[in-house]
Amino acid sequence: MTFVVDFSRSASAVLRPVPVTLPSQYALLESTGRLNNFRRVTGHFDGPYAGIFFNDSDVYKWIEAASWAQAAGPIAALQKNIDAAITLIEAAQGEDGYINTYFSLERKHERWSNLRDLHEMYCGGHLIQAAVAHHRVTGNTRLLIVARRFADLLCEVFGPAEQGRRVMVDGHEEIEMALIELARETGEPRYLKQAEFFINARGHGLLHGGRMGLDYFQDDQPIRAMTCLCGHAVRALYMACGVTDLVLEHDDPALLEKLESLWTQLTRRRMYISGGMGSRYEGEALGKDFELPNARAYTETCAAIGSMMWSHRMLAATGSARYADLLEWTLYNGMLPGWGLDGLHYFYVNPLEDDGTHHRQPWYDVACCPPNVARTLAELPGYAYSTSADAIWVNLFIEGTARIPLGGRTVQIAQRTQYPWDGKVAIEVGTGGRFTLQVRVPGWCETGAGIAVNGEAVQLPMAAGSYVPITRDWRAGDVLQLTLPMPVQPWQSHPLVHENAGRIALTRGPVLYCVEALDHPGTGIDGLSVDMQAPFDSAFDPDKLGGVMTLRGTARCEPRDEQWGSALYRRLEPAPPAPPPAARAVSLTAIPYFAWQNRGASPMAVWLPRVPRD
Amino acid sequence: MTFVVDFSRSASAVLRPVPVTLPSQYALLESTGRLNNFRRVTGHFDGPYAGIFFNDSDVYKWIEAASWAQAAGPIAALQKNIDAAITLIEAAQGEDGYINTYFSLERKHERWSNLRDLHEMYCGGHLIQAAVAHHRVTGNTRLLIVARRFADLLCEVFGPAEQGRRVMVDGHEEIEMALIELARETGEPRYLKQAEFFINARGHGLLHGGRMGLDYFQDDQPIRAMTCLCGHAVRALYMACGVTDLVLEHDDPALLEKLESLWTQLTRRRMYISGGMGSRYEGEALGKDFELPNARAYTETCAAIGSMMWSHRMLAATGSARYADLLEWTLYNGMLPGWGLDGLHYFYVNPLEDDGTHHRQPWYDVACCPPNVARTLAELPGYAYSTSADAIWVNLFIEGTARIPLGGRTVQIAQRTQYPWDGKVAIEVGTGGRFTLQVRVPGWCETGAGIAVNGEAVQLPMAAGSYVPITRDWRAGDVLQLTLPMPVQPWQSHPLVHENAGRIALTRGPVLYCVEALDHPGTGIDGLSVDMQAPFDSAFDPDKLGGVMTLRGTARCEPRDEQWGSALYRRLEPAPPAPPPAARAVSLTAIPYFAWQNRGASPMAVWLPRVPRD
Repeated sequence: MTFVVDFSRSASAVLRPVPVTLPSQYALLESTGRLNNFRRVTGHFDGPYAGIFFNDSDVYKWIEAASWAQAAGPIAALQKNIDAAITLIEAAQGEDGYINTYFSLERKHERWSNLRDLHEMYCGGHLIQAAVAHHRVTGNTRLLIVARRFADLLCEVFGPAEQGRRVMVDGHEEIEMALIELARETGEPRYLKQAEFFINARGHGLLHGGRMGLDYFQDDQPIRAMTCLCGHAVRALYMACGVTDLVLEHDDPALLEKLESLWTQLTRRRMYISGGMGSRYEGEALGKDFELPNARAYTETCAAIGSMMWSHRMLAATGSARYADLLEWTLYNGMLPGWGLDGLHYFYVNPLEDDGTHHRQPWYDVACCPPNVARTLAELPGYAYSTSADAIWVNLFIEGTARIPLGGRTVQIAQRTQYPWDGKVAIEVGTGGRFTLQVRVPGWCETGAGIAVNGEAVQLPMAAGSYVPITRDWRAGDVLQLTLPMPVQPWQSHPLVHENAGRIALTRGPVLYCVEALDHPGTGIDGLSVDMQAPFDSAFDPDKLGGVMTLRGTARCEPRDEQWGSALYRRLEPAPPAPPPAARAVSLTAIPYFAWQNRGASPMAVWLPRVPRD
Repeated sequence: MTFVVDFSRSASAVLRPVPVTLPSQYALLESTGRLNNFRRVTGHFDGPYAGIFFNDSDVYKWIEAASWAQAAGPIAALQKNIDAAITLIEAAQGEDGYINTYFSLERKHERWSNLRDLHEMYCGGHLIQAAVAHHRVTGNTRLLIVARRFADLLCEVFGPAEQGRRVMVDGHEEIEMALIELARETGEPRYLKQAEFFINARGHGLLHGGRMGLDYFQDDQPIRAMTCLCGHAVRALYMACGVTDLVLEHDDPALLEKLESLWTQLTRRRMYISGGMGSRYEGEALGKDFELPNARAYTETCAAIGSMMWSHRMLAATGSARYADLLEWTLYNGMLPGWGLDGLHYFYVNPLEDDGTHHRQPWYDVACCPPNVARTLAELPGYAYSTSADAIWVNLFIEGTARIPLGGRTVQIAQRTQYPWDGKVAIEVGTGGRFTLQVRVPGWCETGAGIAVNGEAVQLPMAAGSYVPITRDWRAGDVLQLTLPMPVQPWQSHPLVHENAGRIALTRGPVLYCVEALDHPGTGIDGLSVDMQAPFDSAFDPDKLGGVMTLRGTARCEPRDEQWGSALYRRLEPAPPAPPPAARAVSLTAIPYFAWQNRGASPMAVWLPRVPRD
């Protein structure tokens, strides 16, 4: 089913630049040769293959994004580009259903020869997801036919050995969730079975022999034996998505319990406070427990997206609000930093501290992140609401109007809110009838949450991190008012995250904050310690960063360099040191972490030392 | 010139296992196919080339080590193996002087085709260094002839374009210092000129187009333009060695000043307290300033050796004790941890904190470190003493007897000492005559250093980090007594090394200490904070780790897990938190960092939290 949400009036900065993002990415698909790679297969372009071997996937991800973006109504310019791309894709598909422009023409004989490293099923998975999105939004079957033909070929070639098929998996997970989505869209159970085959075949060392260890591919042990997610972060998270999709289709309590335990372990030991995951540059990998360097955080934007996709599926499987909490948190603080406020620049790597040298780029040679950001934003309606038999679940708070299929009818819901800057959310029901609104009280909202319907307070527990069920005979025009106080909240890290010892991070509502040196021109940020005794203010600044809520506090500024001189290590003197040079109190300004590095080069930090309590 | 030092009676653990190290490595050269690669070239072995493309260099480094090891007298078994290896090398050299077994037979046509990545000059440099060592120690010219023929070929092929030669440099520096050493050994200035060509050709982007950026190869800018050393740590340090060798031969005050400034910047911003360098796994690179993660320290053993080699050259160029300080520090704390106490296992990577999963290996596929350790240990006599016109410089304190050429005669010097466990060093002069003993007062010895000659105190300044010149008409039997108090010393890090905030490291004399969990069986080490108010003891423990000085102190042990529960991040409450659960005082035992991981798997840490001062 499609949730149709019009977010165009949203006060949040989140969605503003979509209108420039999708057309600019299509132009890049063209200018970087990604579309020419398709033309090349049919003889309409005679240059060499352009770029890296999985470039097709960027085209597919863009189609998926541009399709979801039309859920609230057709956008002619986008559909024209989609149609043009589909025409190229159709023409590039082989008689047998195979499609991958890298493995065409001179490399045709190399097909399926190195599944470990060369992403053929990964690309096919993105083709399928694009086709599902396009079909669901437009009803048009052109791309779905292409996707099914490829899926049918996979089912023919790969499978149990006793059926004369090849036992192999792809080095980059993606096909698993795609095949299950295809099974849902088409009603064809064979695709689900094929996904199950790939999931069960993984973890037995089929991908041996490469430069990377088996754990890089999650092929060192079956998921049922894992005690933690390891290896390449995006791969691990995409695998988890596929397995959760399987659980959603096949009741399997033991596997669901395993997924819950892996999610818990991951989020309690290997996750940045931003929700970002995958701390290592080396192998783009999840680090060990508590290995969370700030400046050298890798935290690929795609990993944040993978985490959102997984939490969304876990929410569907369990109804537990903790998954919605992380989904929202990662949307604002893990994924969104990867996208410039201009809608035209992207981070691949998302450090939580920087010396002012890390900049968003308009595109990357490995361009997985930009179209992944685009499709995630375009899919937001699907994240914002869920449904069960007789309930609408309100997961995200974003101003807009939704038309939600529920039990044979369509319920209209409108949100009016300044979220994430303000915790007041008015939910107006536009369609009468008896059903439940499951209203999320976020985990970040520890105290003071309240719900009123038509001005009358609801007398139900409002625990942080729960859904509050409001069941009634709704009449069109009923207004549910959710109130979520948003005090400034300092956080500290587990003591084993050594780098953060004595440091705090600031949040307000669902938004993580950071400081940038250019808001502290006299002092920079290296010598600042947050004075926790002084109050914090928050104020919406319409002129900063296109309009963001800023935090104001007080910091102690110590002239560190003078105190330390040039030494890197210094003897700890037996007597207490001379009192530090008189510290100045200075004003501290924090901005949303997602908005950093939008005003030129500037050092940035999420974790700040705090003045020790007396 | 050769300093001949017999360290066989040394009380230090440093040198003990050499007798097993060199024979075991020769056996590995054989069993891993490295020697067969030479036999293969002459048709005496018909298997495939074994291992990685620069495997020849391990053979050369081993010959260098085994040659230096015989400086104090021939060791028949070693010389037999050297002779056998030289016979293979002679036979594998081409008519034109070319030698590299990887680029022989089927790969002959690929010679000099990828200098950026494939180490042909790097291997040749190690051949030259081996030849110089072998010739200097034994007087035998067999390997020197091979090395000269290769060097002559280099001189013919590479050089200024206007001379019709090829302008190119090797992707891994090494040939520069080797050629200068060859010029010294042979008196042939052409080799010096060739080294100068390679040094000046570097930094102009000749090595473009690879997977790694130019800075990886120090080819992004000429050294004269650099403000810091960057890129691959071993490459950067080997480059610095070659350039310093050039300065030693060609007076060039501006270049020397540049080297001093690069050394200063490196040691004050990018060096572990162990002396280890190169903090990044990614590209085995020097990190940014203050980027010094402990558990994810890369700090390749070869980088520590490169640093020792560079400081040794800077000492020769300047006479400044700061270089001898770092040389000694890195010997004990940067290089030595790379070598197991059994003399048979090696670290490639040297973390300063570990969860008990990092173990020394008997060998590596990329086996640069083991023979590099061996040659460094075998070269120690050359590090221990230097000479100038009328002075002997005592750089290192290691029990043994040296015969030192000085102004046409040979001066015998004997050291009696328990260093590094005890700071009393008796230096007995065995040869009469007027000369100066330049006695090093290490930088670590802040107060209380003293020198007496024949029982009479010397009245000269004894500044930490200086050489104290003792000039007199020495008589055979004169004894200089150096006294260096060795209190336990806690150190703290620059505040911008965030991970070490609130932490201390312990040293005693020239030795860095660490704690291992297996010395703290009841508590482990994660919850320990060092109580700086309680005294530290040191005691030699003959039964621990083959006999080491241990440190004993007091730690506060907090049951962290209970206090923290399972959360990774926690709200900082506005009121002071409940008092922490009663902390127990426990005994703290520290062992030399170089001796860690010699008793099985055990978590380890160099930097420990300290109980905050009240």
